[in-house]
Amino acid sequence: MSDSIIKRLLRAIATVFSVSLLFVGNASADIPDELYEALGVDKYKASPKELYEAITERYYDPAQGHGEGKYAEYWEPLPFSQYLDPYTYYSPPAQPAKVATREECIECHEDETRGWVHAWRKSVHANLDEIRDLPKDDSRYYKKKLIKEVEKNLRSMGKLEKNENLKEVSCIDCHVGVGAEKGHHNQDLRLPDAAVCGICHLQQFAERESERDTLTWPDTDVKGNKIDPVWPPGRPSHALDYQANVDLATWAAMEDREVADGCTMCHINQNRCDTCHTRHQFSAVEARKPDACGNCHNGADHNEYENYLMSKHGTTYLMLGDTWDWEVPLKDAIAENGQTAPTCAFCHMEYKGRFGHNVVRKVRWAFNPQEKIANNLEHEWYEYRNEAWIETCTNCHSATFAESYLEFVDNGIISGLKKQLEAKQIVEALYEDGLLPGQKTNRPAPPKPEHDAPGEFFQLFIAKGNNPTAVELQYAKMWEQDLLKHYKALAHVNPGFWTYTEGWGPLLERYTNIQDANTQLRAFAKLKAQVATLEGDVKAAKLLDLDSQVERAVVGGLGGGMVLAGVGLVAWRRKQKTEG
Amino acid sequence: MSDSIIKRLLRAIATVFSVSLLFVGNASADIPDELYEALGVDKYKASPKELYEAITERYYDPAQGHGEGKYAEYWEPLPFSQYLDPYTYYSPPAQPAKVATREECIECHEDETRGWVHAWRKSVHANLDEIRDLPKDDSRYYKKKLIKEVEKNLRSMGKLEKNENLKEVSCIDCHVGVGAEKGHHNQDLRLPDAAVCGICHLQQFAERESERDTLTWPDTDVKGNKIDPVWPPGRPSHALDYQANVDLATWAAMEDREVADGCTMCHINQNRCDTCHTRHQFSAVEARKPDACGNCHNGADHNEYENYLMSKHGTTYLMLGDTWDWEVPLKDAIAENGQTAPTCAFCHMEYKGRFGHNVVRKVRWAFNPQEKIANNLEHEWYEYRNEAWIETCTNCHSATFAESYLEFVDNGIISGLKKQLEAKQIVEALYEDGLLPGQKTNRPAPPKPEHDAPGEFFQLFIAKGNNPTAVELQYAKMWEQDLLKHYKALAHVNPGFWTYTEGWGPLLERYTNIQDANTQLRAFAKLKAQVATLEGDVKAAKLLDLDSQVERAVVGGLGGGMVLAGVGLVAWRRKQKTEG
Amino acid sequence: MSDSIIKRLLRAIATVFSVSLLFVGNASADIPDELYEALGVDKYKASPKELYEAITERYYDPAQGHGEGKYAEYWEPLPFSQYLDPYTYYSPPAQPAKVATREECIECHEDETRGWVHAWRKSVHANLDEIRDLPKDDSRYYKKKLIKEVEKNLRSMGKLEKNENLKEVSCIDCHVGVGAEKGHHNQDLRLPDAAVCGICHLQQFAERESERDTLTWPDTDVKGNKIDPVWPPGRPSHALDYQANVDLATWAAMEDREVADGCTMCHINQNRCDTCHTRHQFSAVEARKPDACGNCHNGADHNEYENYLMSKHGTTYLMLGDTWDWEVPLKDAIAENGQTAPTCAFCHMEYKGRFGHNVVRKVRWAFNPQEKIANNLEHEWYEYRNEAWIETCTNCHSATFAESYLEFVDNGIISGLKKQLEAKQIVEALYEDGLLPGQKTNRPAPPKPEHDAPGEFFQLFIAKGNNPTAVELQYAKMWEQDLLKHYKALAHVNPGFWTYTEGWGPLLERYTNIQDANTQLRAFAKLKAQVATLEGDVKAAKLLDLDSQVERAVVGGLGGGMVLAGVGLVAWRRKQKTEG
Repeated sequence: MSDSIIKRLLRAIATVFSVSLLFVGNASADIPDELYEALGVDKYKASPKELYEAITERYYDPAQGHGEGKYAEYWEPLPFSQYLDPYTYYSPPAQPAKVATREECIECHEDETRGWVHAWRKSVHANLDEIRDLPKDDSRYYKKKLIKEVEKNLRSMGKLEKNENLKEVSCIDCHVGVGAEKGHHNQDLRLPDAAVCGICHLQQFAERESERDTLTWPDTDVKGNKIDPVWPPGRPSHALDYQANVDLATWAAMEDREVADGCTMCHINQNRCDTCHTRHQFSAVEARKPDACGNCHNGADHNEYENYLMSKHGTTYLMLGDTWDWEVPLKDAIAENGQTAPTCAFCHMEYKGRFGHNVVRKVRWAFNPQEKIANNLEHEWYEYRNEAWIETCTNCHSATFAESYLEFVDNGIISGLKKQLEAKQIVEALYEDGLLPGQKTNRPAPPKPEHDAPGEFFQLFIAKGNNPTAVELQYAKMWEQDLLKHYKALAHVNPGFWTYTEGWGPLLERYTNIQDANTQLRAFAKLKAQVATLEGDVKAAKLLDLDSQVERAVVGGLGGGMVLAGVGLVAWRRKQKTEG
Repeated sequence: MSDSIIKRLLRAIATVFSVSLLFVGNASADIPDELYEALGVDKYKASPKELYEAITERYYDPAQGHGEGKYAEYWEPLPFSQYLDPYTYYSPPAQPAKVATREECIECHEDETRGWVHAWRKSVHANLDEIRDLPKDDSRYYKKKLIKEVEKNLRSMGKLEKNENLKEVSCIDCHVGVGAEKGHHNQDLRLPDAAVCGICHLQQFAERESERDTLTWPDTDVKGNKIDPVWPPGRPSHALDYQANVDLATWAAMEDREVADGCTMCHINQNRCDTCHTRHQFSAVEARKPDACGNCHNGADHNEYENYLMSKHGTTYLMLGDTWDWEVPLKDAIAENGQTAPTCAFCHMEYKGRFGHNVVRKVRWAFNPQEKIANNLEHEWYEYRNEAWIETCTNCHSATFAESYLEFVDNGIISGLKKQLEAKQIVEALYEDGLLPGQKTNRPAPPKPEHDAPGEFFQLFIAKGNNPTAVELQYAKMWEQDLLKHYKALAHVNPGFWTYTEGWGPLLERYTNIQDANTQLRAFAKLKAQVATLEGDVKAAKLLDLDSQVERAVVGGLGGGMVLAGVGLVAWRRKQKTEG
Repeated sequence: MSDSIIKRLLRAIATVFSVSLLFVGNASADIPDELYEALGVDKYKASPKELYEAITERYYDPAQGHGEGKYAEYWEPLPFSQYLDPYTYYSPPAQPAKVATREECIECHEDETRGWVHAWRKSVHANLDEIRDLPKDDSRYYKKKLIKEVEKNLRSMGKLEKNENLKEVSCIDCHVGVGAEKGHHNQDLRLPDAAVCGICHLQQFAERESERDTLTWPDTDVKGNKIDPVWPPGRPSHALDYQANVDLATWAAMEDREVADGCTMCHINQNRCDTCHTRHQFSAVEARKPDACGNCHNGADHNEYENYLMSKHGTTYLMLGDTWDWEVPLKDAIAENGQTAPTCAFCHMEYKGRFGHNVVRKVRWAFNPQEKIANNLEHEWYEYRNEAWIETCTNCHSATFAESYLEFVDNGIISGLKKQLEAKQIVEALYEDGLLPGQKTNRPAPPKPEHDAPGEFFQLFIAKGNNPTAVELQYAKMWEQDLLKHYKALAHVNPGFWTYTEGWGPLLERYTNIQDANTQLRAFAKLKAQVATLEGDVKAAKLLDLDSQVERAVVGGLGGGMVLAGVGLVAWRRKQKTEG
């Protein structure tokens, strides 16, 4: 038996062992060990309260990713920002300046914003007793246990008495405090963040927060040499997606803040749980459906939703999904739900046969394919994750099938990556040779904290004069969009997209455009040099007196492109952050 | 209290007052006052017949937008045109040349075109008594009242006796005449237009027609100075969308008529009601679903459907819509249907808490963002409409949320508009300086009635030689497609699209391409000028004898691009309008 | 009566006659005569066994399209290829090396790959008796007859005794052999291909295989002159789609095999039936839904799915499809299912009022619009097919409507084709004149068996250096993607796409880019020639000594673009086909 097989066996035994202990301790369940270790909490002895406090302390720590981040000096929040990072920006409305009781919330808002109340009425929150009374054969029966777990958590945190049961979960419990009987509408009101949901839903909160701990990228290569980890610890993940957003120089540098907040509006899973469980129904059924993920995971550089929908998996969902019972928990999806194709949640929330809110435990290529990953795929960190994937696939495919397809995916991605790297060298050489159009005459630096460089991420969102140039943008789209789509289509088994419609097709189109631009820009530069030489020689022979008038007429017009903008737009107000 | 608050209070009181009067008069219901004023009909005294006749007279008036429009001399209808403007072009088939009775329609077409009959069998038209017998708790119970209203209209128009009830709505009632017992198949047959539907559905017809009257763009700016209205009265709207189509010079100028009629096939709401209520089921359920709107509102410059579907609103529809009761009328969608997210119909058919077929009462940016709108947003016309939007949003969001998001939308749109205007100056300067490729050698004028200009709408649909040039088309797509998608994504809360996939991303790509082309075209022109100078000087020094052979070889080939086309295609018949 | 009318009448009589005979013979049913003729099988006397053997012999004949095809020497299969062409590549896994019984398959895989077992449990295969017991008014009642037909086939082939009925269809029946009681897991296991399904489902298999026989393109033009058929016999079709793939030089030439297999993954209908009837539920309901087709028919050059979904047909499916009964067979879709809009299957599986698995009997424009088709539309081969389409449409539209729309489609396609051909001449002239960027310095030939030419299909998938150039790729996308989308949108009645979003809009954009490039490349070539002349003359006058240093600095950099790639990527393994 080889060393690596022994290692894997030991790992497997450890897994089984910890699983068998799962239901012994408090609040441990399926939460990865890594979280307990990172927080210094004893998995088997800590009370829900202790666990919650440890998680929450880290959650709110600006040094560990909470709040405005390292570039706060460069940007201003908008009035709408209070809904994206409520803990930092939300303040209750000035009116009505009254104390409202638990009942008054509902009474008043039934009229004011009836959508809230009607959605809530359909939620489990509003129907605890209905759940408690379910017969065993009801698909939702498992929720009965969840209510008990919530009550255990609340007792541990002193929100319920020893034998007290939860009566209801009403507006005030989340928006003022669990069990509160009344609150000052203009003072006490809060918009719940993930930590507020976590008071009751500790297990799920902890699972999600464990993404910070399980996604630690290797700092060695296959041969044991030190390398820079591909990503910082816990990234990219839902648990730190707001940090990933605000700590991005491009985002902070953007002057058009509503455009920047187009990013933010998805990068708020760190702050909020209702991105998947939409307020105020907070439906689990909804969150199990691919469309819940598709709300963010679509489009330019993360078209997982489109790829899924057009795959055999997705078309089966579209055709037969209406006959599946979405109320069953994920673990029963195949046996009880009748699912004949997987959903996003089924594959990504699964790990070694168990399901939870840490969705990054099998991550390998992560956000984008890079040489650092391609060169390290035989590292055990990647291989272990690949094996976990194979295990996932064997819910419905043979191991041979799964293995050969996952190898197919890796190799397909590498094909795309090679094409991108070939283009990269061309664009960088053009930049180094100073041959990009306007490079020496009309290339404004991007706003701070961003820095200039060729074919960079910022050029997708910030443009002025000849920064970026067309050839750079072709390259930026190649590495940041087409290669990603190529990878996502391969990973989600959508052949039409990776070969044709998205992925390889566009990758090759941009490669072609870059090669073309390279040839033409250099040919033009050569001709310019020839003309300059001719002019010099002819001038030396006193045959020529360069007509600078001609030049001005041709180049003067709007060549710079920098004098523009703003004309006539003075009256447009760019509203600033309101005080209230 | 400020003046503007007083104004708004008065307006609110007026609204309440008119609402309270709604059920007093005949045929008044929810039809805006503006329609009555425009038609000179007394809202509270006019009979359904009087109202119908007034509306219909305008509806059929060529001077007010009916029929072929002002460019009729420039284009020919196709055989298929009879289905796009039936009133103008439809003539019954020559066979069968027989008189058919009410019953024979069904008997014969059950075999001939069974889809018609089977769809109709599922309609309310074929099941009036089923509706009349519904219990009060049935979601469709409200339709009972609608049947009574229809009967009231028919009595007023002399189509029903005083105490006579409607027995059925069969083929012949719409295709020959209400209540007709027989008709000449080859003479009397008609394809119903909106006015035919309006005989029974007067209320809905009138609501739709009121779009002409409520959408009157302000002719002053914030300071009271006269300005040109952004659009003609009643435009853009469903009520005048056929006029908008045929009165467009680009459309009339297009030689490829089937391409032109790609526009027409959506621009027929003015003529027909079955664009939303598909024949012959005429389902209200269908028309309430976003896909009904999506049939037209998708794609290049009006991707509302895609934006909605990918928004939180739309994904909620996709995930939970199958649990909602679509039979309830819109006003009950939240309370009775169980909707936890809005549909197109809910937000756009709502105005001040009431629902109807005038969908343009809250329009502000309309078809496309323009300086004229951006500069006038503080005009009360726009502010009042913004407030109406806030009211709509408060069905499910706080007023603070709604206000801050609507402000967000405006500012985001303005960001895009600024970028477009910056590009506009560059393209116009290239045109003025005569530097567009082929501008002086290969720029055919567009066919009449269109006129040449740089970066215009027609260039999206008509191309010949170097008209348009690539840089112009980049600009045309920028203002006509990307900016519109940017705005629509913002308005429909689809962040991935406005920042990344559509909208800002493509806006910036085109901006980059335009800047790049500007720099390169000017650099080339400069070099050309340098070479010309050199040639002149060298020639003057008698060193050079320009080899015109070389030039011919290089430029001659297909430089013009105008000698082409049609070769070998002579045999292709372009079928002309048939006589029958 | 004209000759052609008489011909048609005779044809119609022949059709009726053969239909009336349908239920007399064995295994004849709806299988086109052309198949019997091609195989030399007597339609009315042959037993199911004889028919099956004749079909299967052809099916497995490499000379008639089975297997690796004519370019096998140029490419290597991947480990995953065994799932794309199982007959050629599949070998059972080495483990478990045991004999398994009929029951053990299920027992073991219920644990191993539970998805298989749970899906199969929902299939008709696992519930034969449930079908046999259905009451007459059940939508699935027709399947009872299908089971009897299967049993008749099995009896003819000696797989069932004379009075024996089929007990079940379990794993082993398909994966080892019909009726087998046990098998060596590591020896006998097979992945079923279409011929395996055809043992039981002979009728459907034969229908599908008849596509080879009914799609024989005319070899004369309207005037009776000999012409090359547009496609080889039986192509393009599902029945030969794997051959179409492997016999394509571009596909065989591609070095990135996972990209090439993006094509293959759809081009396997020839090999497998579960592309539409997904294993292991093999649902007919699923295969009737448009999404089954959409799995492949989407994207770059065959966006039928998107066009359908956005058409009135498709939106009706989206809105009301959930109220239709999908269990009824296609022939009853309108009358019994309640469908008010057609699906892919309804229109494409229908021919002359009957439904079957030959979906190419009304094909006219096939894969892509070409001059050869446009010039021959009046040939009776095309006209007969057009009439068959009109008949299809009259299920729900008048003949006048259908005829005028189908004419509209043809003319719209021709508009696009003309634009493409205009561009073709420009690109070819640039190539002939040697003016494409890098054409003389950096244009590697494509890998064998592909050959170089301008604007060709291979350039969409293979790129190196300046092959292709940007302008060629614009053209390749024009003829291979935009024109196809234009045609598919017209044919599927999605006006927004053909005029605007896909089709004409992009066609014109590429036309514009090609015209622009033509003008600029020729202007540059002219200027270069002028400079060369100047240099020559000045040199002749001994004024100039060309500074070759300057040239090297400018052009040297990465001008070639051919030195690149592979650097640093040595470590990336390109895994080879595994032995197992």
